[in-house]
Amino acid sequence: MLIRIDHIGIAVDDLDAAIALYEQQFGMALVHREIAEGPGLELVLLGIGESHVELLAPVRDDAMISGYLAEHGPGLHHVAYVTRDIEAEMARLADEGMRLIDTEPRTGVRGSRIAFLEPDGTGHVLTELVQPAPDV
Amino acid sequence: MLIRIDHIGIAVDDLDAAIALYEQQFGMALVHREIAEGPGLELVLLGIGESHVELLAPVRDDAMISGYLAEHGPGLHHVAYVTRDIEAEMARLADEGMRLIDTEPRTGVRGSRIAFLEPDGTGHVLTELVQPAPDV
Repeated sequence: MLIRIDHIGIAVDDLDAAIALYEQQFGMALVHREIAEGPGLELVLLGIGESHVELLAPVRDDAMISGYLAEHGPGLHHVAYVTRDIEAEMARLADEGMRLIDTEPRTGVRGSRIAFLEPDGTGHVLTELVQPAPDV
Repeated sequence: MLIRIDHIGIAVDDLDAAIALYEQQFGMALVHREIAEGPGLELVLLGIGESHVELLAPVRDDAMISGYLAEHGPGLHHVAYVTRDIEAEMARLADEGMRLIDTEPRTGVRGSRIAFLEPDGTGHVLTELVQPAPDV
């Protein structure tokens, strides 16, 4: 079961400018910031209601979104939904015929457990499942 | 002030397939459906937490998103945030130096009042302000 929008993921090439936009112009609070070494990204979460804007900026040339940025430029990248039990949700969606990019949950932003669905099965919307860490 | 995500807008070319995905696979409830003659769109809202997924499908060749679909194909199109007073929020953002596509609010989905920001000023994320109708 999907409970709420956890975040919308936005690919950016100028992280400081994007933070200024969402903090100063849009009035959102910066609630988390980390470097994710695996995908080579700096990730920033800004609060909006029960959800977040997640800014994704590459920290090296072969970062996960470098190809995306080169092809599409900055912009809306993905949407993530909260689930309470990611293994159960992954199994349920697989039973429904959905294909997953991740066959097992992996670590996402702020200690969450995440998995991405194959966008060919979601109308080309990159869709992420998120089980937040217990303490957030 | 932006209060919450009103909806994420998703451009689709097969509305029935998209509704089936969000209703049946993702378990979201279809809460509204309308034809918007002005932009030439069929709009469908599905509930997720305090927000919605908005599906946008063209109903004629010169629909507002026909060019987008021809260029990009289906996928994430825009994000919309709720504000209680759209004129005040438009004025505040203009004072902050943001450019607006709409100089006055116009009617959006489900009787809302909406305005779009110029995406050149928002990191190429098409961003919409929404003042929901009083009765929703």
